[in-house]
Amino acid sequence: MNAITTATPEARTAAATRARTMKAIVKGAAAPGAEIREVPVPTAGPGQLLLRVLRAGVCGTDLHIYTWDRWSQGRIKPPVTLGHEFVGEIVELGANVTEFKTGERVSCESHIVCEHCIACRTGNGHVCENTKILGVDVNGGFAEYVAVPASNAWRSPANIPIDVQGIMEPLGNAVHTAFAGDLSGCRIAVTGCGPIGLFAIGVARAAGASLVIASDVAPYRLDLARKMQADAVIDVSKESFVDRVRELTDGRGLDGVLEMSGNPQALRDGLAALRNGGRLSLLGLPKEPFDLDWNRLLIFKGITLHGIIGRRMYQTWYQMDNLLRSGRLDLKPAITHVMPMERFDEAIGLLQSGNAGKVVLVPWGQEA
Amino acid sequence: MNAITTATPEARTAAATRARTMKAIVKGAAAPGAEIREVPVPTAGPGQLLLRVLRAGVCGTDLHIYTWDRWSQGRIKPPVTLGHEFVGEIVELGANVTEFKTGERVSCESHIVCEHCIACRTGNGHVCENTKILGVDVNGGFAEYVAVPASNAWRSPANIPIDVQGIMEPLGNAVHTAFAGDLSGCRIAVTGCGPIGLFAIGVARAAGASLVIASDVAPYRLDLARKMQADAVIDVSKESFVDRVRELTDGRGLDGVLEMSGNPQALRDGLAALRNGGRLSLLGLPKEPFDLDWNRLLIFKGITLHGIIGRRMYQTWYQMDNLLRSGRLDLKPAITHVMPMERFDEAIGLLQSGNAGKVVLVPWGQEA
Amino acid sequence: MNAITTATPEARTAAATRARTMKAIVKGAAAPGAEIREVPVPTAGPGQLLLRVLRAGVCGTDLHIYTWDRWSQGRIKPPVTLGHEFVGEIVELGANVTEFKTGERVSCESHIVCEHCIACRTGNGHVCENTKILGVDVNGGFAEYVAVPASNAWRSPANIPIDVQGIMEPLGNAVHTAFAGDLSGCRIAVTGCGPIGLFAIGVARAAGASLVIASDVAPYRLDLARKMQADAVIDVSKESFVDRVRELTDGRGLDGVLEMSGNPQALRDGLAALRNGGRLSLLGLPKEPFDLDWNRLLIFKGITLHGIIGRRMYQTWYQMDNLLRSGRLDLKPAITHVMPMERFDEAIGLLQSGNAGKVVLVPWGQEA
Amino acid sequence: MNAITTATPEARTAAATRARTMKAIVKGAAAPGAEIREVPVPTAGPGQLLLRVLRAGVCGTDLHIYTWDRWSQGRIKPPVTLGHEFVGEIVELGANVTEFKTGERVSCESHIVCEHCIACRTGNGHVCENTKILGVDVNGGFAEYVAVPASNAWRSPANIPIDVQGIMEPLGNAVHTAFAGDLSGCRIAVTGCGPIGLFAIGVARAAGASLVIASDVAPYRLDLARKMQADAVIDVSKESFVDRVRELTDGRGLDGVLEMSGNPQALRDGLAALRNGGRLSLLGLPKEPFDLDWNRLLIFKGITLHGIIGRRMYQTWYQMDNLLRSGRLDLKPAITHVMPMERFDEAIGLLQSGNAGKVVLVPWGQEA
Repeated sequence: MNAITTATPEARTAAATRARTMKAIVKGAAAPGAEIREVPVPTAGPGQLLLRVLRAGVCGTDLHIYTWDRWSQGRIKPPVTLGHEFVGEIVELGANVTEFKTGERVSCESHIVCEHCIACRTGNGHVCENTKILGVDVNGGFAEYVAVPASNAWRSPANIPIDVQGIMEPLGNAVHTAFAGDLSGCRIAVTGCGPIGLFAIGVARAAGASLVIASDVAPYRLDLARKMQADAVIDVSKESFVDRVRELTDGRGLDGVLEMSGNPQALRDGLAALRNGGRLSLLGLPKEPFDLDWNRLLIFKGITLHGIIGRRMYQTWYQMDNLLRSGRLDLKPAITHVMPMERFDEAIGLLQSGNAGKVVLVPWGQEA
Repeated sequence: MNAITTATPEARTAAATRARTMKAIVKGAAAPGAEIREVPVPTAGPGQLLLRVLRAGVCGTDLHIYTWDRWSQGRIKPPVTLGHEFVGEIVELGANVTEFKTGERVSCESHIVCEHCIACRTGNGHVCENTKILGVDVNGGFAEYVAVPASNAWRSPANIPIDVQGIMEPLGNAVHTAFAGDLSGCRIAVTGCGPIGLFAIGVARAAGASLVIASDVAPYRLDLARKMQADAVIDVSKESFVDRVRELTDGRGLDGVLEMSGNPQALRDGLAALRNGGRLSLLGLPKEPFDLDWNRLLIFKGITLHGIIGRRMYQTWYQMDNLLRSGRLDLKPAITHVMPMERFDEAIGLLQSGNAGKVVLVPWGQEA
Repeated sequence: MNAITTATPEARTAAATRARTMKAIVKGAAAPGAEIREVPVPTAGPGQLLLRVLRAGVCGTDLHIYTWDRWSQGRIKPPVTLGHEFVGEIVELGANVTEFKTGERVSCESHIVCEHCIACRTGNGHVCENTKILGVDVNGGFAEYVAVPASNAWRSPANIPIDVQGIMEPLGNAVHTAFAGDLSGCRIAVTGCGPIGLFAIGVARAAGASLVIASDVAPYRLDLARKMQADAVIDVSKESFVDRVRELTDGRGLDGVLEMSGNPQALRDGLAALRNGGRLSLLGLPKEPFDLDWNRLLIFKGITLHGIIGRRMYQTWYQMDNLLRSGRLDLKPAITHVMPMERFDEAIGLLQSGNAGKVVLVPWGQEA
Repeated sequence: MNAITTATPEARTAAATRARTMKAIVKGAAAPGAEIREVPVPTAGPGQLLLRVLRAGVCGTDLHIYTWDRWSQGRIKPPVTLGHEFVGEIVELGANVTEFKTGERVSCESHIVCEHCIACRTGNGHVCENTKILGVDVNGGFAEYVAVPASNAWRSPANIPIDVQGIMEPLGNAVHTAFAGDLSGCRIAVTGCGPIGLFAIGVARAAGASLVIASDVAPYRLDLARKMQADAVIDVSKESFVDRVRELTDGRGLDGVLEMSGNPQALRDGLAALRNGGRLSLLGLPKEPFDLDWNRLLIFKGITLHGIIGRRMYQTWYQMDNLLRSGRLDLKPAITHVMPMERFDEAIGLLQSGNAGKVVLVPWGQEA
């Protein structure tokens, strides 16, 4: 992965002659909504790459920023270009970048980490104390071009569709969660079938889980879960999760739960359905604090519970790369919509409707 | 540990001529209290050992049974002889017992497990689905004699005081909790300085933690924590746990927390004081469900949380054995009272007062 | 999994009326060969099961005993009934057996362990210091009936062919080796495509390896490797293992090697083809000591090397059970011959020819 | 460790006015020996620090380079300033260095890694495929000044002697080896009592091993092992390692071996003395390939063997930092000589004599 080259003169020239402004989706004010703006094309600073964006995924976080919820109000400093999931083609190399060349296609890690804190120095960059996030804290990829640290770029596997190359960041959340404990030969449930939950179903299967159960309350998403090849789905609006798991596992319970919903009952049910000694990995963000019967659900059962955020940098990317190159992980069923970036408001509407898996945006000037 | 011998004829004779009744502390009725009764001496069934009890520890669980709290009302079926922490001398071997001989001194695991459930079959006997506990579900060691499965016996290390041999069971809780994550070169806090917390301080030090901080609200227990060689103690009734930890760790936070109090705020503070990526191992049983700010305390920090119960069977015992034989773990400061078993009510009073570390009982006919 | 029942009167009667002698394949003398003998039907001692054997696998170890090699001369005490891989139906329950009933079909762990040594007491029964092996040290399963400890029995998954139920023991070797390190999303090579190597290919795929490469020198076995769905096979008599792995992994090397051949060059090549930091798990038994360039192949690369023997008792069985029940692991292509036990000499001939995968024997009175 | 500051104008001025040449110990020609030369003071390039060297340790590798052995002939390109273990004071900050300030005292990792290979990207920088080593491939610290990447610098713990601050690099080898497996409550042997072996004794004790046995053939080094508080020492020129370990462990064997000698018999004896299921971590470099009885020593025992090189970057440094700050690890007994750098030839002679532990050099202009 380390062809060490420098940009050809042609490439640099190409970059030099590019347009001076571009279209971008910008959170322009401390209020709901977002707007398409004409903004300057960024330049690749030292250690950075300038990418022409090819595809970008829309995430629940974008919805939070759009609706200007409490978390967004505390975190976002407008104006900022949104978008933290994307793939692009390198069009310019900043100073001191030696490991990439222009023309390469790269997917991007969204966490820009400090590399100096104890977490960063000990292989835990995903919980860096000084993280800045592309599309949240600094300008992101809902635009024609984006500048990113070269160290955040990962050469996209060539054998997968460009739409999938665009969503490796959220796939990485699923891989990080799934790989936080044993998978091989394990009975796994994924609670919550939003896009990351759907990815997690595919990941768990491709990574060797022997049974993958998915749960949600929405028939639309349960149908997608089936398309992602869940061995069984549970509509928790109609059935008891714990009872159904017991049936599906011959009374043995689950070896692991990947919690993707943030729903208190999903966490409680997930713990209840684990075999003693199992693990629950928790990525879904609850809306607010909630209580747990610690004794019955965690201590007496000897459970291990992992809080999961981001992606291991870059172990998770290596694992994703292997999974995707193998051809055993197919995310296309989870991508329900591919649409022009111009129609961002409509994409947000789709997310709000609940009738969407992953929505992928195609920037201005790119063809779907 | 594998001297495979059979009882000498002398030993069997000795057992045969023993007394037919004995004194025991019995939970005789579904009501508060316990009583000293004259009961039949048990016999060693197939695969069992009959022990002459030499020392027995009093535990918080005994207090619960004594006061007849809700948990006890649901679990205990009187009459039952109490006592699940003890050391004894083997006086009789049941059929098919080949790995012990009479005269040996053994400490006992209190969990009698089924050996057939998935937990038992995969090295997780501590969370066996069919556990019976000595002194809770079957007759225990607050008596002159007790019958136990030979597989629950562990030859007591010879170099440690008999009082310590009597409390290897709760020491095992501390070791299991401490050894659930990294200790070597780690900054560890023990929250809650009851007997198991006090043991955990000693264990963490002997097992290589580079900093051991202890917290509690009671000056009496904090003083014992100092005697167990905690590097620092925090009186959380007077100081902020999180602030003090920050000072004591140069702002880096803790690598691990061993939660021994069951107090909601201790759990929350423990999580807050961990470095990102740290672990909290939870042995203390909360009185009732309580809420947590999952996002801030667990997910964003990438924490691993372990529910801990019992002792790994018998890995924890092997680890204990090594620690105790090394001479690097001294539990004597945590044993504040050694008294005749006859004075059980007084021992219970001591526990209720809070002015006791571990209380060890000496059965009838034994000398302190 | 532990329906606790006792044998019905009918079952016990059935056992009581069974034949008094049976046919068995016996190593009768300290010399090459083995013979079919009429021997007494064993009885189920305390804690044992008597099984009517339904299928039994032939193993390379049987070949060693047959040819009476040096290892056999030091280990085997004739007469002994051979056969350590088998499935049977329970026809009699020994005293104190409560977790099985007659009529159940069970596959068997071949290691009878002491349960008292440090290894046994700490979850490492597979390296018990006092192991006795069925069909090696005590009478085994190349017979109409065999008596086994109930704790060595594992209910056979019902959804798999009886021939596969008969070879869970060697499958367990493959699972133990594969599961000794990471598999999910990993690039794995299996060096040596005898039966256990073939199983390991299937296991690695079902357990989530993203690339499975197999190597051998025999076209017959490489063809079986392809049928087990190896992603690529390398004929090391014609190609450089290291070069081909480099091509197949885009220069990245392997994450893990499962060494099944006992061949010195296979071990050296396996180490050379690993990425730095990879693991090699070593099950194949070299014929004699051989040398290694420790610096270049192990130390400078930061490799982890595992010596593997037997099966984790019974974690490996639980993992096998999950894999087999999932339907994602199909071992049938590796079973090349199913033949009457009567034709044992012919089976040995097949093993010697090298033109066989796993050979399964059908006892007298059973139908293939 | 994260005080983010920039150099004061004063500091930069101080650097600017420093001397233009300095003394250094240079491997000047492809032949045995080394010489003191007057060379230009280096400058801190982008991302680098210029250090005034305060202390530097002499390593066996320096001896190899000095005697110009075969490894050196293949690796070293004269002229190069030697020295890869040192502590210095920051006197100049290169461009883009923000996390340090002048005047800080830092110890240094000697491996300069590429940060782009798979090893580097997945937290295994210690086995980077493109490693360059200070004092081997690029100019090192046997000089008045040395330039190092800022990312290789670690603030020296302030509570330890400056001589110890100078040898954190080889201490890191010991910590990496020791921490490659379990230590807490374990029975550990260190085979080979050169400087890193001596450090490993101290590390194993401070990190919670319950028994630390050291072996060597030289009474001088065994005496140092005792001073480092080994619980027992074995002179393998006079006693059987395996027999003595058996005695010292009550027949149980070792949980782990830290192999520091590179001696074939030490590796074989280490494996033989392990309990089944134990681990051996191998840092000592054998002079040439040698053979092993793989079956008896590794496979049948279920051993895990680790090849160890360098230090985990920077987890090992974090662990070292914790150990040293705790005050529980005292390396002074292992430092037998502190002498002026000017007397480098004499230091080499000491190493050759075998009558030295760690030798620390004091650069020109520094006081011992």
